[in-house]
Amino acid sequence: MVETKDIKEIKGGVCAPIGFRAGGIYSGIKANSKKRDLALIYSEKPCTASAMYTGNRVKAAPLQVTSEHLKDGILHAIIVNSGNANACTGEAGIKAARRMAELGADLFAINRKHVAVASTGVIGVPLPINAIESSIEALGNSLRGDETGHSMAYEAIMTTDTRKKEASIETEINGKSIRIGAMLKGAGMIHPNMATMLCFITTDALIAPDALDISLKSAVKRSINRVIVDGDTSTNDMVIIMANGQAGNEIINAGSSGHEIFTGVLEKLCVKLSRALARDGEGASKLLTVSVSGAESEDNAELLARTVAGSSLVKAAFFGCDANWGRILCAMGYSGADFKPEEVDISFAGNGEEIMVCKNGSSLPFSEPDAKRIISSEEVEVLINAGKGSGAAIVWGCDLTLDYVKINGSYRS
Amino acid sequence: MVETKDIKEIKGGVCAPIGFRAGGIYSGIKANSKKRDLALIYSEKPCTASAMYTGNRVKAAPLQVTSEHLKDGILHAIIVNSGNANACTGEAGIKAARRMAELGADLFAINRKHVAVASTGVIGVPLPINAIESSIEALGNSLRGDETGHSMAYEAIMTTDTRKKEASIETEINGKSIRIGAMLKGAGMIHPNMATMLCFITTDALIAPDALDISLKSAVKRSINRVIVDGDTSTNDMVIIMANGQAGNEIINAGSSGHEIFTGVLEKLCVKLSRALARDGEGASKLLTVSVSGAESEDNAELLARTVAGSSLVKAAFFGCDANWGRILCAMGYSGADFKPEEVDISFAGNGEEIMVCKNGSSLPFSEPDAKRIISSEEVEVLINAGKGSGAAIVWGCDLTLDYVKINGSYRS
Repeated sequence: MVETKDIKEIKGGVCAPIGFRAGGIYSGIKANSKKRDLALIYSEKPCTASAMYTGNRVKAAPLQVTSEHLKDGILHAIIVNSGNANACTGEAGIKAARRMAELGADLFAINRKHVAVASTGVIGVPLPINAIESSIEALGNSLRGDETGHSMAYEAIMTTDTRKKEASIETEINGKSIRIGAMLKGAGMIHPNMATMLCFITTDALIAPDALDISLKSAVKRSINRVIVDGDTSTNDMVIIMANGQAGNEIINAGSSGHEIFTGVLEKLCVKLSRALARDGEGASKLLTVSVSGAESEDNAELLARTVAGSSLVKAAFFGCDANWGRILCAMGYSGADFKPEEVDISFAGNGEEIMVCKNGSSLPFSEPDAKRIISSEEVEVLINAGKGSGAAIVWGCDLTLDYVKINGSYRS
Repeated sequence: MVETKDIKEIKGGVCAPIGFRAGGIYSGIKANSKKRDLALIYSEKPCTASAMYTGNRVKAAPLQVTSEHLKDGILHAIIVNSGNANACTGEAGIKAARRMAELGADLFAINRKHVAVASTGVIGVPLPINAIESSIEALGNSLRGDETGHSMAYEAIMTTDTRKKEASIETEINGKSIRIGAMLKGAGMIHPNMATMLCFITTDALIAPDALDISLKSAVKRSINRVIVDGDTSTNDMVIIMANGQAGNEIINAGSSGHEIFTGVLEKLCVKLSRALARDGEGASKLLTVSVSGAESEDNAELLARTVAGSSLVKAAFFGCDANWGRILCAMGYSGADFKPEEVDISFAGNGEEIMVCKNGSSLPFSEPDAKRIISSEEVEVLINAGKGSGAAIVWGCDLTLDYVKINGSYRS
């Protein structure tokens, strides 16, 4: 990652960049909880936009409609509901997703193709589009250009989330201030390549469409796509970035130094959201950062880190604060990545302390109480040196807890 | 699978075939529980033998030594300890495994290369070979040629197992009775390609080495390697079959009709053990049988079934008796297998009842109380028709429970 200029945290979330407004209301979809379930993010000016979608072969209706709408790379608004994923809902689901975009477009008399739609919640239940129809006016009225707007919209996209995953920053590119704001929703079913995860990013930077696309893909690859909670990849995940060019900066073209800075800042922002996402894994009691170095390549390092962070046995051991490093080496062994077990060193870090527990693939005498204290930290790092290569990667995960099972044993009921 | 002759269940486990003896004692390895931890299986005559090992790149010392010893395809005895996996223990571990084989060989004055060794338990802790040395005589004295011998040996290889996974049968091949006996150990960390799973099979059939090898690989592929508990593949798994030819049958050659019968009988035996293995998944409250048909190929069907049975979200839903079929379709979607979501039908079966919950990839109105009653069964079947192909496969798994997390949060401590 390139070194970035000073980054200043600011308030406002997705409303922090100039010219964006957001809102959220209860429309009737979350009939049980009566919580906000419908959100809108709107830019006064049409935006250059880019999106990434779930790797799941089963793609929810809103993803199909949004990718269709985004073909020309322009977005004006995003409308999102929670409480229903509109997935596995057949032709009726596609129709409902189209109607949802249309309702958003009608509010501002804009082209419905310039509206993206997203849904999250239970799979296989028809989307109650009537609820959205009858509350679309109220949704439009809820729009605010400040933090309140951001918060309302954010509340309306949350499901089992217990923590807010949001950020907004300001930085300078070629002498001009630009702002980026983001909200991210997701807790369970989080796996590389995005899962029941929705992330909406706004920026007032003026940036060329191809440059924006490159920045998003690069930043997401090294952040959101390296979060693993339970290995399940959802049908509904999506990251969308909208750039309305209101900052007044000179256009950022692909490959320029300004572009490198933009990508670096975006990656930092996304890493911050990713850490929060992993920490908020369903039922998680701690953040697990698995950092692999010395691998043959970055891809190799990522595969090793991902397999360790995704192992149910490793995750359960961290829940129990058990320094069971054998399970880590074991997970590396079935990752499919190329490495020599006899070259592996493993350490744990937490609470500002570090302890090595495995050297050259073999056990090392270490103080169990010290290890236990370190991995009792709320943020534990697993440091793996896989050998003599130069490939490195970080993956974020969490422990497997009793609460994970409780939450997912009764989600739909 | 070919149709097999009448199979009669008999008593005796691995001691049921003519000429086998077994025993088991407490040697001091399981110092906390003082349970039996050292087992021996011995054949009066040297055996034709074949083995399969874990797919994990990190292979425990006993596997390295056993595969070395098995190069000439002859075995006389198997010595096994529980309480310590002798994995990730470096050169000292290899030395200890060699010594263990030697101790077994000395008992009977046989070639140490004709002794296989196996270990199961915690990873990364040096094997206390002294304990084995000082109790090897007692182990030899514990040998019995009946069910008692089998039971002592079996107790000595168990770790977190709560149910016995054993079988012995008699059948007729070319007019002669032959017997096969087996014990299987394993509860957590069970994944296709074998994981913290040890399975020892004895038979008195006279069978050619290549025929025995083909039978074992074919039977294990469609049984033990289709069991998935938590997706972790251990460093220690091994299946060994020993055939001592004492039944007096005409030799079974590869490709003969007798060979087909032998393979079929062995597969049935292994399926029985596999179902018990899945049912005994750590913390499991129910057996989950995922049966896929209509896939493009058997491999494709297996990949779909395996991904569904391995999904934490699917497993947690079954623990909660929640008919959340969306998670099943979703898991199929990220399996990597080729299929058309709009051609998928899903049903649940249990307690002699069956209910369809998804037709052509979309939700189907169904009675929630009926579905709940069916999946509250201790043995639930997920029946998936993936499309218009002829590929089919069955995978066995279990639900993800609070107890799984409790057990694995504190295994080593």
